[in-house]
Amino acid sequence: MTKTKMKGSFTLPGEAGYEDFTLQMAEKWGADVIRDSDGTKLSDEIINAGYGIYSTICLIRSDNEWAKKNTDKLQQNFLMSFPVIAESETVVIDPLDGYFRDQFMIMGDDSKEFWQVYDRTTGVEVSTKLWSYDKTTGKVTIHGATPWHKYTVNFLTTRLWEEISMYNHITNDWGDKERLMAVEPRYPETRENILKWLEKWCVENPDTTVVRFTSLFYNFAWFWGDDKKNRNLFSDWGSYDFTVNPLSLRAFEKEMGYKMTSEDFVNGGNYNATHNVPTKKYKDWMNFIHRFVVELGKECIDIVHKYNKLAYVFYDDSWIGVEPYGEHFKEFGFDGIIKCVFNGFEARLGAGVNGVDTHELRLHPYLFPTGLSGEPTFAPGGNPKLDASRFWVNVRRALLRKPVDRIGLGGYLHLIQPFPDFCDYIEEISDEFRTLKSFHEVDSPHVVKGKVAVLTSWGKLRTWSCSGHLHEHPEVDLTNVLEALSGLPVDVEFLSFDDIIANGVPSDVKVIINAGCANSAWSGGDNWKSDAVVATLTKWVHNGGGLIGINEPSAVVTSDSYFRLSHILGVDRDTGNKKCVGKYQFDLTNDHFITHDNNNVEELMKLLEGIFVLNKDVKVLAAKEGTPLITANEFGNGRAVYLSSFKFSYETTRLLYRAICYTLQNENAMTEYISSNLYTECAYYAAGKQLVIINNTEEVRETVINGPNGERVEATLKPFETKILIDAM
Amino acid sequence: MTKTKMKGSFTLPGEAGYEDFTLQMAEKWGADVIRDSDGTKLSDEIINAGYGIYSTICLIRSDNEWAKKNTDKLQQNFLMSFPVIAESETVVIDPLDGYFRDQFMIMGDDSKEFWQVYDRTTGVEVSTKLWSYDKTTGKVTIHGATPWHKYTVNFLTTRLWEEISMYNHITNDWGDKERLMAVEPRYPETRENILKWLEKWCVENPDTTVVRFTSLFYNFAWFWGDDKKNRNLFSDWGSYDFTVNPLSLRAFEKEMGYKMTSEDFVNGGNYNATHNVPTKKYKDWMNFIHRFVVELGKECIDIVHKYNKLAYVFYDDSWIGVEPYGEHFKEFGFDGIIKCVFNGFEARLGAGVNGVDTHELRLHPYLFPTGLSGEPTFAPGGNPKLDASRFWVNVRRALLRKPVDRIGLGGYLHLIQPFPDFCDYIEEISDEFRTLKSFHEVDSPHVVKGKVAVLTSWGKLRTWSCSGHLHEHPEVDLTNVLEALSGLPVDVEFLSFDDIIANGVPSDVKVIINAGCANSAWSGGDNWKSDAVVATLTKWVHNGGGLIGINEPSAVVTSDSYFRLSHILGVDRDTGNKKCVGKYQFDLTNDHFITHDNNNVEELMKLLEGIFVLNKDVKVLAAKEGTPLITANEFGNGRAVYLSSFKFSYETTRLLYRAICYTLQNENAMTEYISSNLYTECAYYAAGKQLVIINNTEEVRETVINGPNGERVEATLKPFETKILIDAM
Repeated sequence: MTKTKMKGSFTLPGEAGYEDFTLQMAEKWGADVIRDSDGTKLSDEIINAGYGIYSTICLIRSDNEWAKKNTDKLQQNFLMSFPVIAESETVVIDPLDGYFRDQFMIMGDDSKEFWQVYDRTTGVEVSTKLWSYDKTTGKVTIHGATPWHKYTVNFLTTRLWEEISMYNHITNDWGDKERLMAVEPRYPETRENILKWLEKWCVENPDTTVVRFTSLFYNFAWFWGDDKKNRNLFSDWGSYDFTVNPLSLRAFEKEMGYKMTSEDFVNGGNYNATHNVPTKKYKDWMNFIHRFVVELGKECIDIVHKYNKLAYVFYDDSWIGVEPYGEHFKEFGFDGIIKCVFNGFEARLGAGVNGVDTHELRLHPYLFPTGLSGEPTFAPGGNPKLDASRFWVNVRRALLRKPVDRIGLGGYLHLIQPFPDFCDYIEEISDEFRTLKSFHEVDSPHVVKGKVAVLTSWGKLRTWSCSGHLHEHPEVDLTNVLEALSGLPVDVEFLSFDDIIANGVPSDVKVIINAGCANSAWSGGDNWKSDAVVATLTKWVHNGGGLIGINEPSAVVTSDSYFRLSHILGVDRDTGNKKCVGKYQFDLTNDHFITHDNNNVEELMKLLEGIFVLNKDVKVLAAKEGTPLITANEFGNGRAVYLSSFKFSYETTRLLYRAICYTLQNENAMTEYISSNLYTECAYYAAGKQLVIINNTEEVRETVINGPNGERVEATLKPFETKILIDAM
Repeated sequence: MTKTKMKGSFTLPGEAGYEDFTLQMAEKWGADVIRDSDGTKLSDEIINAGYGIYSTICLIRSDNEWAKKNTDKLQQNFLMSFPVIAESETVVIDPLDGYFRDQFMIMGDDSKEFWQVYDRTTGVEVSTKLWSYDKTTGKVTIHGATPWHKYTVNFLTTRLWEEISMYNHITNDWGDKERLMAVEPRYPETRENILKWLEKWCVENPDTTVVRFTSLFYNFAWFWGDDKKNRNLFSDWGSYDFTVNPLSLRAFEKEMGYKMTSEDFVNGGNYNATHNVPTKKYKDWMNFIHRFVVELGKECIDIVHKYNKLAYVFYDDSWIGVEPYGEHFKEFGFDGIIKCVFNGFEARLGAGVNGVDTHELRLHPYLFPTGLSGEPTFAPGGNPKLDASRFWVNVRRALLRKPVDRIGLGGYLHLIQPFPDFCDYIEEISDEFRTLKSFHEVDSPHVVKGKVAVLTSWGKLRTWSCSGHLHEHPEVDLTNVLEALSGLPVDVEFLSFDDIIANGVPSDVKVIINAGCANSAWSGGDNWKSDAVVATLTKWVHNGGGLIGINEPSAVVTSDSYFRLSHILGVDRDTGNKKCVGKYQFDLTNDHFITHDNNNVEELMKLLEGIFVLNKDVKVLAAKEGTPLITANEFGNGRAVYLSSFKFSYETTRLLYRAICYTLQNENAMTEYISSNLYTECAYYAAGKQLVIINNTEEVRETVINGPNGERVEATLKPFETKILIDAM
């Protein structure tokens, strides 16, 4: 391969003051687009160098002067006060006590009708006649309280500081730099100002070819506390808490014919984290906000298009209501979507969005002195090439399966100057990316026959995501499963319980995965109370379907077994009430198709106390302290596999693929374009006869790949290497 | 001490054929009573040697000839069939499939009215019109089933083999030896035969001075499976499943005015294990059976008394309905109670019974070739002296606190002949026992001021017991707590939630312990839904009470916090729905009164995932992987301690005592007759100025004991030694 052939599909972050270096790197990496970043500017010299130009804008915090003059039109949200125990019949609560007062403030009286006071001991709301709010003290007084009960106030608060601005400001110790505020676009005046500002911006930025929205109107939920030891009081990448205000609440009631209450959002202090099973009301609210965001967003995009620019959306930060997998996303008319990625599942999350022409990934590391945990990146002691290799290894295996159109970087370009090996490595992986992209343009790679469906409470809406990054909630089994799946030769789709009830299991789905702890959105919680779901899946597996259950699949407390599909899985969990019920004393099946490639398979699994097998027919493939970790069971014409946990690794990824093949009743799939060495993976593109083999580790690896007709390829791979063989099979 | 002074209070198991040896051991051990055992006989030579004579009888299996002729009057019980998935609208179930048919049989038609068929998928009972039982095939056919739902049959079964006979028979491979049957005493004919048999027995055994009942009419529940890999399908030392039959069910309805159904017993296959929270109906049934057992039992005891014999009851095996801590126990008129003991809490269980003159402990090891797990005891390879030492160490510390009147052994005496060191050791501990007993006769030992109450669903009825032995369910925190408490200088009482609701916390109680996993009878489960209980305890601690919570104290799912007393404990548990809720980042308090004597205190505790502290005021004394294991908190004028688990050891026993003193706000208690070395303990009897120091370990230990007025005693103890100092303090 000669470098001159590899050009384009790469977005480079330019930086004023470093014009020569910017253009030099653009040439080296084959960039066709130059972008600005948060905190950087592009100079005329860069803008006029013949590259496409991305400009980042964030509409809700762009006109801070207007925001400062219109603090009655800032964004709001519900909070629940910290609980107070009544020592007498009168209780005084400072609702903001414990919250970060730089972020939150109680404003005008408009919102009082939405406040609620609760006796949390009984769970009963206190009559509005029994409490009052004193504006001068900022406190709520409750009369006629029951002594020794616990009270809280749900209240609406105005946010004085946009969260991304707040985070950057405090993390980087920006001192006097202006604090940006987030305006609420639902107010007609705000809406008008946003549109006016955008039009003016388009006029003033004629060289911009792509407007990159960061993102639209509402950031994911992020409540801060005043105690540095408890700064993140609530944070979730998918929660709609910041979309609430009197105007929206009233509009919802008018449109839907019923009211949302503060408690629908506050939810006893748990709010509506994506990891929890959503209520019907909350889903209605999400859809209501999505419709508003699409409607106003489309108007913004139309302006951008009017100025002959493209409109891309960043799939992070203020992405709430955008919902790239939502019902109305296509109506925006976005030209592209950009996802920042640490992991493979995020690459699939970006790649899988319909309704845009261009899918772009912003790779890591971000060109910044330090990483997310404060470790040096582009600073003394950092090794950005190694960082980049590790991130690329995560993402590359996903790109083998599903292409995107572009990749790029973000941050301060000048920081990379002391790291020439990093500059060379980015050149290398951008060429690799372009090569893989060219294969995908001709053909899709080989996948095993039979679709795998992930069954959750969210279904398609949370395709390839459990809210946020893997490192934020590494304990969520399903995120780990998605990371494994993202690079496996498997067609994946996402189903909700509503889908099953309405349409049964789609005919092309051959395996269903249900993974997560009880009561989570991922396992399904109360959705498993549906007898229809249980009967449908029972029949479906009996007729030949495959089921993979992880952690507490189908778990819910009813009068039935704790795992509602225990009869299929062959295992159930004793949560403590079966202490005196005998458990079958199984023997271990040491050599089984599913565990074949893995030694010490019990090291891969976390023990879940109380798991037991139902009868002698269930095969236990791994166990610890007498408790099964991995089991296989036949049910009618179908098969089921149970895993007590799932933590992503190349070992568990192989285990999962084998579990999929086993439940597909297609053990032969292991001889079809699967790398014998589980630390390496491969993809085969039949049309071009291209075999791509990747080494996911820092060590040299040897492997053998077999084709379905007896073909055989042996290969040795350098650390992290991508090896491309044409006509080898 | 001279051996000649120490005599009496000892029951020796005699054995015909070994007359000389029996009398020799009786002399050596200072026995005043000789007993028979299951499988042994006493000869005239022994009977006439001038000792008291215990004879064991078990009324319900004594007249097997009568039982064989009256199989319609055998004991019965409900079982739930193993579930069957409907593949069409017709389902056929063999109710006994999977059960041990040597134990269970479906008899006459009398019981069909009590059978129930359930759709376990919906939890709804199937109309009796839709199913039928075919006597010839032994199968139930259900019509109009919902395909792919799960069905079970609740049915009454007759037991053909009394469980202790069955267990001994199969364990000892008794082959053709007659299988004993348990008759149901509720039938008038059975009752009459039992009374007649007992009267005849009394006439025929004039030398017996004490009739030892083993025990009365109903064994604890023990269902066997036909698969040797799943033999114990259900077993619980405290369950009333074997008390059920058509006669009793009808009598209950007549007496109580409402019906018990099969499902009240079967409970979806979980039955009514003592570890689970009992329903009101089940408690009514227990009381109904208790009244019957007392009424008929009293009649038996009257016969025994008529023949000038004493009546003792064995507190094991067929003890169901006897309930030594039950409302009516005193009405029996028993003269003594005998408890077999492995552990200290069992010694307290036996010692604490009111309404009898004599409390006796049957020590371990049982004189049998092998132990409970089949390990050699009185067989080649066994070390019965060491076994006896370990059991004695367990029991001795409890006897320091609370006396019993007698000790004894059981089994085949001849087996001990090859073990003279064992014979010497029993001589030694029987002297020790008699010495301790003499101290108690003068005074009670020192205890810390302020009673400690254990709060459970059972309250006083399950005083000093969580059902069965510690080794059967070592995972039950409260059993471990009871074992620790059994030898601590603390007054203990047992409270139920009903007690709290009716009377509040008794005025002499200063600390409450609530220990166990959620939904267990021990933690309390649904009892914690009571707002009154929560408010009462909140007020009580606020006013100065102490609370020790272990594992999942006060846990129940409501709209309130998961631990209902989280505001007192200062900790709560995230069961998965608070993933996005911030947790306070605590610092560790390394040096604290509670953990003072223990190094590596985190090794003592099992991590409970999801435990988090509520705020900065909570002191975390130990943590693992960022999760608190031990915390201390102040609430108003009271204090609370949280422990994530409790596994009995001398280290955790010390920790518990310190937690008690801390919550009592009496840290000085550590200088009042507490051994500085936690592997040794002591008791001080003020009236006799006797200080007893015990070494609980196999190593030599040095210790210092302080008195409240500056007294100080230093001591060095040999392995397992009991050191008695008079006038030392």
